[in-house]
Amino acid sequence: MQSIRNLNDMIVFLQQRGDRKRVAVVCANDASTRYALEKGREMGFIEPIYVDGDDKDECARRAVALCKSGEADILMKGLINTDILLRAILDKENGILRPGHVLTHVAMAEIPKYEKLLFFTDAAVIPVPTEAQRRQQIHYVNYVCHALGIEEPRISLIHCAEKVSAKVFPYTVDYLEIIAEAQTGAFGRCIIDGPLDLKTSLDSVSLREKGIRSVIDGRADALIFPDIVAGNVFYKTLTLFGYAKTAGVLQGTQCCCVLPSRADSPDSKYYSLALAAI
Amino acid sequence: MQSIRNLNDMIVFLQQRGDRKRVAVVCANDASTRYALEKGREMGFIEPIYVDGDDKDECARRAVALCKSGEADILMKGLINTDILLRAILDKENGILRPGHVLTHVAMAEIPKYEKLLFFTDAAVIPVPTEAQRRQQIHYVNYVCHALGIEEPRISLIHCAEKVSAKVFPYTVDYLEIIAEAQTGAFGRCIIDGPLDLKTSLDSVSLREKGIRSVIDGRADALIFPDIVAGNVFYKTLTLFGYAKTAGVLQGTQCCCVLPSRADSPDSKYYSLALAAI
Repeated sequence: MQSIRNLNDMIVFLQQRGDRKRVAVVCANDASTRYALEKGREMGFIEPIYVDGDDKDECARRAVALCKSGEADILMKGLINTDILLRAILDKENGILRPGHVLTHVAMAEIPKYEKLLFFTDAAVIPVPTEAQRRQQIHYVNYVCHALGIEEPRISLIHCAEKVSAKVFPYTVDYLEIIAEAQTGAFGRCIIDGPLDLKTSLDSVSLREKGIRSVIDGRADALIFPDIVAGNVFYKTLTLFGYAKTAGVLQGTQCCCVLPSRADSPDSKYYSLALAAI
Repeated sequence: MQSIRNLNDMIVFLQQRGDRKRVAVVCANDASTRYALEKGREMGFIEPIYVDGDDKDECARRAVALCKSGEADILMKGLINTDILLRAILDKENGILRPGHVLTHVAMAEIPKYEKLLFFTDAAVIPVPTEAQRRQQIHYVNYVCHALGIEEPRISLIHCAEKVSAKVFPYTVDYLEIIAEAQTGAFGRCIIDGPLDLKTSLDSVSLREKGIRSVIDGRADALIFPDIVAGNVFYKTLTLFGYAKTAGVLQGTQCCCVLPSRADSPDSKYYSLALAAI
């Protein structure tokens, strides 16, 4: 498989594969969710299963049950409170969280000023990842990158500088341990480095001007943020000011979940569906 | 004074005022620092005082002494390690930190997709502000906004959401206290709200779509970040992907200090000088 460099390539890839994923969509009562689903259906890569009704809890449970039984491949949120759907997803007995896994968010962005797709985690779900959760985030982001044909993803562990700061930012010490583990193959095929700041992760000129050496060489495929605040700021700055197109999926579940924000653009919902269908 | 809406307005304002600030510049041995100084001199708003020599510590001390004695109005860093200059600035006996004040960084950005100048703190100096430091940051950013003619700055206290989260993010509780204090006039004339995320701070459409009400109404003049990581990610995303022009100054000292990063663009250094000269 050739590496997918932009969102259009991703759609073309899905069309050529010609495989329709079944999407259980909960309360698709808003124009942008309908748009995303109909466009995905027209392009030939999904088939929506509309789950609707007066009792939103009941709708959420039914959609999750379709995923659990294998009757649907993807779960998508429409006009329903995120909390309600998350409760159904995380339900111990009837939910779809994989045992021993953590629910986390992987986002993808096509940015005019960046040469390739950029993946990052976590802008939306885990507030402050534990060390174990951070390792799962790396596994997921690496998995998603590989699914898009990136053979050896360059994964940058984000901080505001390149120095380890044990006292104020203990996660920077964890970063060094992660790098050591990565070298033994613990995360599969990928290149991990950090702590790096955003600029030294994504711009080789800045990297050199700062006199820093990194195996990522300013060409990261994926960014791991230390907490949800930094990840969220990145995500929203990109969409507000960076002319970026974005997509996002949840990982850790038995099937891929698309839980867009109400304020996400129709196209962002469409691209998220496409990412889930990969 | 009319409010300054972009960087060009700021230069025009300085030219019309016709007042030259004396800039003590330490080791201006790189092209971009020279460019910024010469352009500022040509435009008529600064007069450089070059402080140079083999002993960089000695240069730093001399430049700081010029500021302390009133022979210079602005301190600027050239090709010298930031740590060396900071040591001279913070020196208990001969330094220029105002008693009882904290050193912090205020940045300013002109962003094509935002209708006015945007100020923010702290992307560069204080790792995790204490409650007292956060209040000083608000004072400084409010002061800088007023200096640029913004009569009632809208200041947003940044988080990843609009909910207070006492357990995981205690600063969100502090935000509510700050808002209460602001209503008694503790910060002078300004409008403060939070916690708000980046989008609800800067985009009134997103604010309404999320069903949130805020006195800032998606039109913030200034952002207070909870820590240096979030601030730094914002700053670097803007400059990498947002086509933004930026400037930055240190606050808390007897005179305004410009300490650019080596990787800052020549124009960013020039605009920082202009901001310091206001």
